[in-house]
Amino acid sequence: MSYVKKLKCLLCGKEYTSKEVKYNCPQCGDEGILEVIYDYSGIKKDFNPVILEKNKEFSMWRYLPLLPIDDPTKIGPLKVGWTPLYEAKRIREDLGMPNFWIKDDGRNPTASLKDRPSALAVVKAQELGEEIVTCASTGNAASSLAGAAASVGLKSYIFVPQTAPAAKIAQLLVFGATVFAVRGSYDKAFDLSIEATREFGWYNRNTAFNPYMVEGKKTVALEIIEQMNFDVPDYLFVPVGDGCIISGVAKAYKEVFSLGFITHLPKLVAVQAEGCKPIVDAVNGDGKVKFVEPNTIADSIAVGIPRNRLMAVRDVKESKGFGVAVSDKEILEAIRYLGVKQGIFAEPAGAAAFAGMLKALKEGIISKKDKVVVLITGNGLKDVESAKKAGGEALVIDPCLEAVKEVIKKHIKEDEQL
Amino acid sequence: MSYVKKLKCLLCGKEYTSKEVKYNCPQCGDEGILEVIYDYSGIKKDFNPVILEKNKEFSMWRYLPLLPIDDPTKIGPLKVGWTPLYEAKRIREDLGMPNFWIKDDGRNPTASLKDRPSALAVVKAQELGEEIVTCASTGNAASSLAGAAASVGLKSYIFVPQTAPAAKIAQLLVFGATVFAVRGSYDKAFDLSIEATREFGWYNRNTAFNPYMVEGKKTVALEIIEQMNFDVPDYLFVPVGDGCIISGVAKAYKEVFSLGFITHLPKLVAVQAEGCKPIVDAVNGDGKVKFVEPNTIADSIAVGIPRNRLMAVRDVKESKGFGVAVSDKEILEAIRYLGVKQGIFAEPAGAAAFAGMLKALKEGIISKKDKVVVLITGNGLKDVESAKKAGGEALVIDPCLEAVKEVIKKHIKEDEQL
Repeated sequence: MSYVKKLKCLLCGKEYTSKEVKYNCPQCGDEGILEVIYDYSGIKKDFNPVILEKNKEFSMWRYLPLLPIDDPTKIGPLKVGWTPLYEAKRIREDLGMPNFWIKDDGRNPTASLKDRPSALAVVKAQELGEEIVTCASTGNAASSLAGAAASVGLKSYIFVPQTAPAAKIAQLLVFGATVFAVRGSYDKAFDLSIEATREFGWYNRNTAFNPYMVEGKKTVALEIIEQMNFDVPDYLFVPVGDGCIISGVAKAYKEVFSLGFITHLPKLVAVQAEGCKPIVDAVNGDGKVKFVEPNTIADSIAVGIPRNRLMAVRDVKESKGFGVAVSDKEILEAIRYLGVKQGIFAEPAGAAAFAGMLKALKEGIISKKDKVVVLITGNGLKDVESAKKAGGEALVIDPCLEAVKEVIKKHIKEDEQL
Repeated sequence: MSYVKKLKCLLCGKEYTSKEVKYNCPQCGDEGILEVIYDYSGIKKDFNPVILEKNKEFSMWRYLPLLPIDDPTKIGPLKVGWTPLYEAKRIREDLGMPNFWIKDDGRNPTASLKDRPSALAVVKAQELGEEIVTCASTGNAASSLAGAAASVGLKSYIFVPQTAPAAKIAQLLVFGATVFAVRGSYDKAFDLSIEATREFGWYNRNTAFNPYMVEGKKTVALEIIEQMNFDVPDYLFVPVGDGCIISGVAKAYKEVFSLGFITHLPKLVAVQAEGCKPIVDAVNGDGKVKFVEPNTIADSIAVGIPRNRLMAVRDVKESKGFGVAVSDKEILEAIRYLGVKQGIFAEPAGAAAFAGMLKALKEGIISKKDKVVVLITGNGLKDVESAKKAGGEALVIDPCLEAVKEVIKKHIKEDEQL
């Protein structure tokens, strides 16, 4: 059995046992997201730096004592988590930032951070004896859930906006999911998936509806904490759509702090696209989230109605962090910069956090000496169309040396003038 | 300094020091590929199961004593290798094969096995003080070299066939490579890259030209050996293009055998597409490789003139293995099967080895009780067009519950009839 003590409603504060509720607070409805509270004094026996040092499970499951898993035999086979935290030496030198790190979570099985909560969702589904899982997603949660479900033999019915990138839809189909490509935005797909869940009784993994998803997402920050040897960055830049990842990051730090293994908390920075920045505006303003129509190439964070808005805004404000919005152009430039300087290929939402960091640096909100971690949430192979916009064109030539020489003369010189 | 003793020509047997030659045997030319010979008695002090057990470097570099690296400070930052070896429980059950494993090497930084030799190539280039690296590639070697080069600050000039999948070219460009998309096959691009290397003096990473690439590739098998706890499979299925990966696998097993840490060698099975099977025909026949015009969707193994043919045919024959050719249809079915049954998304060449295993099983060449490892060499996100052919279509619907119900009634019933 897990160390979960109770599920507590974000809105009304009412507490439930995990047996009493499946999704949100029955009293408060949609906004009554439940937070998982553990027996931390019990956890301390199983989770501390000495035990971690000896732990040979190099995946998200090395943090099992801090996860809501009752039956670990239901954990799927895919290796999720323990993605690299890079010191990013070339970027450090280029920017003059000696304390800069990149966490590359595109290195997960289906190439995004969403593999973490999805791996957890299929354990919970199996614990409940469910056979069908569902979710709505801009694409990454979807493909991760479909992959995780396939790996343990569950069926998946997935709702995505029809405009999701081809690669993400292709992944879903290869994993054998039944894919509903909804004519409309992610926000529409989300509502529809909830309706369908109520109608058909499937197990739903939706962000800010299923209370356990923040728990899966927090493992990325538990890794950062351990990989930084329990040192804490000044700022942690996170791309924000629904706001569930940033709340996962916040929860990891708060829990490890309350366990006494770190001395303070990092400031969390919410990064969104200029064409869709409801959370950024809220955390930089009065805290109230106003819904928008998304307009950005960063599909994974094109969320006009952020489902985890209350928790996300609370967490950023509590951390004394802030929000930054970046243009699509800045996102594309960040994709190229990460590729050229560090050999990391990020999808637009993944690169957004880095673009946000550059902007905060330029505007003097953070300084070059600050200890900064940027979270990359998905691999660029997920969205080749955007990558093409970032990377430019190949030089098509005939197979002869003369053609090579000509190109070199012309293009390389242009390059050198840049 | 490394434990490299000499480089020995595959054809004439002449031995060189690593300082004397850069690429092939000067006497024998193109076919005179050099093999790296180590001081194995020296290696034994630094490489054995007890030392490995304590080694905390979970990447290809945990095998440093068996690699030709003179200056380890030149190793790049990207985390390459230590990819998962899956017990693939659901496939074991489905096929009735209790001793079946999958090595998923699509989990490397640029999503293919080729990150291993490319990581090694950029170390060698830096050791030699080179500033520009080049290669010809069907796509994966290219993107891996471009990524590795970017991560350490080298320039890369890359030759690919114009027909390489969009994702692979997008990767190259994001990594800042100068990309020559050659009007012609991989085989033409290969020749042109050698010409350009001679003309411009770049450092060339081409397979079966640069003697160190087999060394990088062998790390995948060193991992399999260690992950199987020094137990040896009966058969190891490997997709074959130039034939360099399968020779890397062979070398790993031979070296660990000669060090005394395994009791015997596995039979190696070369898998190719029916539309391009020069190596398969050679190993199943008289050993002579006849060149062909490639015709297959599996672009990574669409190699009509396999550059490492002599070594590959020798290695498969010596291992008492064989060759299998699979149709493009079988490859697409294998992509879907791996996705649906195990949540692994492979590119066509990556899935080819699995398709070959199924065929060998069906034809009774191997039995269900055999201990079998299948090597998946690249992630399906590399080639979304093929994935679409394998996965089918999403169901486009209006955002209303009625539409979901209708689809479920229609499509799910069809599904159940399958």
